[in-house]
Amino acid sequence: MPGIVKDTSIDVAIVGGGVIGLSLAAGLIKRNIKVKVYEQAKSFREIGAGMAFTANAIRCMSLVNPDIVSALRSGGSVPTSSDKNDPNDYLRWIDGYNSRRKDDPLYEEMLYKLNAGYRGFEGTRRDQFLEALVKVIPQEIVELKKRLNNIEEKGPNGRLQLNFSDGTSVEADAATNPGGEDNPASHPHYTQKIAYRALVPMEKAIEALGEYKARNQHNHIGPNAYLIHYPVANQTMINATAFLSDPNEWPDDKVTVVPALREDLEKHFADWNPCVNALIQHFPEKLEKWAVFDMWDYPAPYFNRGNICLAGDAAHASTPHHGAGACCGIEDVLCLCILMSQVNDTLRGDESASTKKNAAICIAFEVFDLMRRTRGQWLVNSSRRMCDLIQQPDWGDESKWIKAQTCFEEIRDRSFKIWHYDYDSMIKGTIEEYAKRQSALKGSDAM
Amino acid sequence: MPGIVKDTSIDVAIVGGGVIGLSLAAGLIKRNIKVKVYEQAKSFREIGAGMAFTANAIRCMSLVNPDIVSALRSGGSVPTSSDKNDPNDYLRWIDGYNSRRKDDPLYEEMLYKLNAGYRGFEGTRRDQFLEALVKVIPQEIVELKKRLNNIEEKGPNGRLQLNFSDGTSVEADAATNPGGEDNPASHPHYTQKIAYRALVPMEKAIEALGEYKARNQHNHIGPNAYLIHYPVANQTMINATAFLSDPNEWPDDKVTVVPALREDLEKHFADWNPCVNALIQHFPEKLEKWAVFDMWDYPAPYFNRGNICLAGDAAHASTPHHGAGACCGIEDVLCLCILMSQVNDTLRGDESASTKKNAAICIAFEVFDLMRRTRGQWLVNSSRRMCDLIQQPDWGDESKWIKAQTCFEEIRDRSFKIWHYDYDSMIKGTIEEYAKRQSALKGSDAM
Repeated sequence: MPGIVKDTSIDVAIVGGGVIGLSLAAGLIKRNIKVKVYEQAKSFREIGAGMAFTANAIRCMSLVNPDIVSALRSGGSVPTSSDKNDPNDYLRWIDGYNSRRKDDPLYEEMLYKLNAGYRGFEGTRRDQFLEALVKVIPQEIVELKKRLNNIEEKGPNGRLQLNFSDGTSVEADAATNPGGEDNPASHPHYTQKIAYRALVPMEKAIEALGEYKARNQHNHIGPNAYLIHYPVANQTMINATAFLSDPNEWPDDKVTVVPALREDLEKHFADWNPCVNALIQHFPEKLEKWAVFDMWDYPAPYFNRGNICLAGDAAHASTPHHGAGACCGIEDVLCLCILMSQVNDTLRGDESASTKKNAAICIAFEVFDLMRRTRGQWLVNSSRRMCDLIQQPDWGDESKWIKAQTCFEEIRDRSFKIWHYDYDSMIKGTIEEYAKRQSALKGSDAM
Repeated sequence: MPGIVKDTSIDVAIVGGGVIGLSLAAGLIKRNIKVKVYEQAKSFREIGAGMAFTANAIRCMSLVNPDIVSALRSGGSVPTSSDKNDPNDYLRWIDGYNSRRKDDPLYEEMLYKLNAGYRGFEGTRRDQFLEALVKVIPQEIVELKKRLNNIEEKGPNGRLQLNFSDGTSVEADAATNPGGEDNPASHPHYTQKIAYRALVPMEKAIEALGEYKARNQHNHIGPNAYLIHYPVANQTMINATAFLSDPNEWPDDKVTVVPALREDLEKHFADWNPCVNALIQHFPEKLEKWAVFDMWDYPAPYFNRGNICLAGDAAHASTPHHGAGACCGIEDVLCLCILMSQVNDTLRGDESASTKKNAAICIAFEVFDLMRRTRGQWLVNSSRRMCDLIQQPDWGDESKWIKAQTCFEEIRDRSFKIWHYDYDSMIKGTIEEYAKRQSALKGSDAM
C-alpha cells in the first residue's frame, strides 16, 4: 500500500499496460512513487500464447516487487522441465528432421542440453499472468482506452503533457514512451521469420510427443525451421510455436498477424519427424500466422530523451528465440525503479525541488540509457543469431552435423549471458552513476 | 636440462616445428619427457609477418616453460599499445572509410576501444620469435627435412611408426599429427578473405599514420575490408595486414599464396581514409596475396585417435581475425604437457608399464579432446564471425552506424572469452578427468 507521498515527489506516466508496463507500475507503487498507467485497449491483453522467465529475471522481478512473482505463480507458471529424476530445468535441442528409427519412429537425437539450474525457467500463459498481475495494481491508477497521440513539453520546468486520441490530456513529470513517433528512424522491421503458435492440452501433447517430451521443454530443430514447446498452466497444456524462415519481405507492417490454416504448417513440416507432425495435428484448424518483427535493422539510438524514456519492447523489440524479451524488459523495470527512487531521495525535503525535478529525471534517464541500451540491443542481435544457428540449413544433412554442432558453444555463451546477468552490479552502477551526475550538477550550480 | 629419465617413461614425436610444435617440445623437455621434433623444411620458418599473444596465453606459455616467454621477449615482442599516458593495451576499431575532416583529413572516428589490461597483448615478428625459440630446444631432439608420409601402428602395444618421405622411419609411444590424411572429411577451406601483409619501418608508419596510430594497435574498418596494424620488433616496425572480402572461390587449395602488386591493394582502398592509403604506399611494390583458409566448413570430429593427437592449427586452423590462433595452440600445449606428465606419473615405478603405456596415452588424448575440442572449434567460428562484424557493409553508410555499432558488445564478449580463459580450471579438469579414467581402467583390469 502506498505510504505518505510528499509534495516534492515526482509522478510518472506509463504508456502501455502489458507485462512490462504493469510490472513497472507495481515497482513504483512499492516505492511510494506516484504513477499512472495508460492503456489503449479497453481491457488488458497480451499478444501471443505463452512466455517464459529465467530464474534470474524472476529474482529481478522480486526486487521490483515480490507481488509480481506471486502473480506469476498464481497465474499457473511452471518450470519448463518436469522430470522426476532431475530437479533442474534444461533447454534441449533435438533433431526434428533426420533421424527416424524403425523401432522408434518418434526417436529424435539429443543434439544439446543446457542446464538452467533449479527452476531455471518458468513458463506461463501470457493471459493468465497478466490477469493475476492486474490485481497487484490499484484500480485507480489505471486508465483504459487511452491511445497516446503525442507527448509535449509544458512550461519551463519540463513537465510533460500526454495527449490522447480521445481529446483528453494528462500531465506528468516523467513518462515511458511506447516508441515510434519520436524517432521514425528507429522501428521494428520484419525478420523474415513466421510464427504459428498454439496452446495444446497436455493429454494431446503426450499422445503426440510421449510423456517426457510433452512435460519438458524441447526445441525440435531442422533446416530453416524449428518448433519449440514447453508446459504452461500448471502442466495442463503446452505452449507450442513453430518458426519458419521466409525468403520474402512482409507486405504491410501495420498488419502483422494474418489468418492461416493448419494445413500450411502441415505441408511445411511434412518431411519432419512423425512426432512433430502429430503435435501439429493438435493445433487448431484455423490458425494465425505471425510475422516476427524486431529492431535489429533500425535500433533506437538512445533509450532516453529528456524526461521521456523507452523501456521493454519500445526500446528493444526482439524476436523470441532466446525466450528472454520480457526478461530483459524486467531488468529495465528494475533499473527504472532504482532510478525513480533515487530521484525522489534527491528531492525529498528540498524546498526548491520543483525546479530541480526535471534535471534529476533527465539525469536518471541518461543513466538508464547508459546501463541498459547496450544489453537491450545485444539481446535483439543475439536473439536473431540464435535463430540463424538453430535453423542452419546444415541440420538437413547429417554429414554436416559435425560442423553444425559447433554452434552450441556459442548458444551456451549467449544463454549464460542472459541467465547469469549480474543485476547486483547493474543496481550498484545505476546508483553510483546517478550520484556522480547529481553531484556534477550541484557542482555546476554552485559555480 | 633433462633430468634422469626412467625406462618406463614415454617418448613423444612432434610432427611440425612451428611455434606450437616447438613450444610443446619445450614443455615436455621441462617435464623430463622424451621428445623429438620432425620438421619437413630444411630450416625453421614461420609463415606470415607478425603475430600477437594475449597476456593470458603468455601466462599459459610460462606454465609450459618460462623459457618460451624469455624467447618471445628476446625476440623483440612489444605491447601492442605504447601510450605514455596509459599503461594498458587496447584493441581499437576506427572508421577507415567515411569521416574525413577538412581540418584533419587523417581523422578517423574511434568506434570502439577495448581494454586488454596491462601488457594485454604483445606483438612480435614471427621469424624473430621462432629464431629465439629454437635456441630453447636442444639441437639433438630436432630433425629437419623430415616430411611425414604416414603413421602406422606397430606391434601389440600400440607403438607408432612414423614413415617419412626420405624412406626413413622412427618409432614413438605417442605423436602429434599435422592433420589431413587421417580424416579427409576434416580440412582447411577457403574463407573468401584475402590478406596482404607487410612489415613497415616505424618512421614510415609514423609519416603515414601519425605518431599515435603508428605506435598503437588499430583496426581501420569499413565495408567488406579492414586493415590492422600493431608495433613489433621493439617498436622499430609495424606489422600491417589488409583483409579483403572475396565473393569467389579459391581455385587451388595447394597454392594459397600468389604474387600480387601493391597497386591491386591501392585500387581496393582508393576510397578509404588518406592515412590508410598513405600506409599502403609503404608496402613493397611486389606483394604476396594470401588466401585465408580455416576449418569452419570441415571441422575435425575429434582431436584424438588412439595415441595420436591433433593440436594447434592441425586441430583448429583459424582465420587471424581474433589474433588468437596461436594463443589457442598454446593452451593446447599446456593441456598436453599436463597430460603427458600425468601419464609418466602413472607409469613410474610400474614394472608392467610397457603394456600399460598405450592405454594411458589413449586416455590422456581422450581427455585432451574433451578439454580442448569445443574451445578450438569455437575459436574458428568466432574468428570468422569477428571478420563478418568488422567488415559489415553497413560501415559504408553513416546512417547505418547506429545499427553497425551494436556489434561491439558481441566483439567484447568474444574477446573476453579468449583473454580471460580460465586455464586453472582447465588444468584442474584435465588432471581430474585423467585420474577418473585411469581408475576406471584399473577397476576394469581388476575384474
